[in-house]
Amino acid sequence: MTNTPLSVVLVSGGLDSMVSAALAREAGHRLLALSIDYNQRHVVELAAARRIAQALGAERHVVLPLDLSAFGGSALTDASIAVPKDGVEEDVIPVTYVPARNTIFLSLALGWAEAAGARDLWIGVNALDYSGYPDCRPEFIAGFEGLAELATRAGVEGSRFRIHAPLQHMTKADIAREAHRLGIDAGMSWSCYDPVGELHCGKCDSCRLRARGFVEAGLPDPTRYAEQPDTGR
Amino acid sequence: MTNTPLSVVLVSGGLDSMVSAALAREAGHRLLALSIDYNQRHVVELAAARRIAQALGAERHVVLPLDLSAFGGSALTDASIAVPKDGVEEDVIPVTYVPARNTIFLSLALGWAEAAGARDLWIGVNALDYSGYPDCRPEFIAGFEGLAELATRAGVEGSRFRIHAPLQHMTKADIAREAHRLGIDAGMSWSCYDPVGELHCGKCDSCRLRARGFVEAGLPDPTRYAEQPDTGR
Repeated sequence: MTNTPLSVVLVSGGLDSMVSAALAREAGHRLLALSIDYNQRHVVELAAARRIAQALGAERHVVLPLDLSAFGGSALTDASIAVPKDGVEEDVIPVTYVPARNTIFLSLALGWAEAAGARDLWIGVNALDYSGYPDCRPEFIAGFEGLAELATRAGVEGSRFRIHAPLQHMTKADIAREAHRLGIDAGMSWSCYDPVGELHCGKCDSCRLRARGFVEAGLPDPTRYAEQPDTGR
Repeated sequence: MTNTPLSVVLVSGGLDSMVSAALAREAGHRLLALSIDYNQRHVVELAAARRIAQALGAERHVVLPLDLSAFGGSALTDASIAVPKDGVEEDVIPVTYVPARNTIFLSLALGWAEAAGARDLWIGVNALDYSGYPDCRPEFIAGFEGLAELATRAGVEGSRFRIHAPLQHMTKADIAREAHRLGIDAGMSWSCYDPVGELHCGKCDSCRLRARGFVEAGLPDPTRYAEQPDTGR
């Protein structure tokens, strides 16, 4: 087992990072799963992260508390900003954007990777996020990979860190298909930004994109919604 | 006051970040002070950070808990790794290096800066750290500044973040002189990695470098050491 590569996989509890982590496992990597409890209003996703880390056989799962609500600035961490429910806007960075979130999460993953001797980091950013969130763009991922070399002892000593973002150019339909192909239960994952008890709300951007993905993939949607999302465009 | 620039200053409680933050204030910036409670063994430095933030008139001081001991890999966060006491080694990355620490801290500062509308970040890395810690090197700071543009909404919308590391090319003696010139009490700051109650140990790298700085600057050292450091080279 000693030659099996070790990866730190960011697992939010959502569908995307579940598929990203499953691809790391399919590539033959041993998994260290990292989730951040950032006081997100959809904290129920952390229960999903635990289910996923266990189902994928992660060697360790760290759920790291990090209260980003101290900074505010996002509907996901600031209770005074409402989660939009009127449909996905195009060409606008949504208020659900959390300032510098992926930079923070990748930095933490990098810290664990370096301490544990892992050189591979996996993050589930995808083409749909890319349209709205700056830190889901391929140039950001490439930029972080370059920084990792400058930032670490391992980098100085000649190691390279690889930041894998295998869903980068996939649509939600591609991702739903990928989950199906990998034989993992998409129902384990959680996408909703504004849960109604144990149910996905069905109205936030994240629910709409999730539901549309299953429809476009021609696959059954295992999600339990409080209100059935409108999957037309 | 509305045109006064707003800065996020990383304040560890140490002498370097105290001087860096004081330079931000001297430059006419309003200060948001950020300290990270990363379960460091020298947690007494956070009390120093509170004194410093208050003395510099920071508008807000956030002490963010972030338990990096979950990852281990450093003498500063892993109780099973001893803090070296035998003198400062040259050309070696010390075991007190915390994997990716400055990447993590700058990412958090960036998140707060973006949420608060600040565009300036200040960090107290210096030439002495540079000789040992990869994430204190000028190329790392420049790399992070480039990444900040790719990582944020503000960057996408055309704003630039500036990462100030004004001590980068200073020695500890320069920094001690700078504290003196700025009229701030160096005795407020805390450097020791392995405190003996309320006293600096006088034997860890950080105590040795601090003590040597005051000697070389020809200034009185306000620090209370458990054992007087050897300040010869």
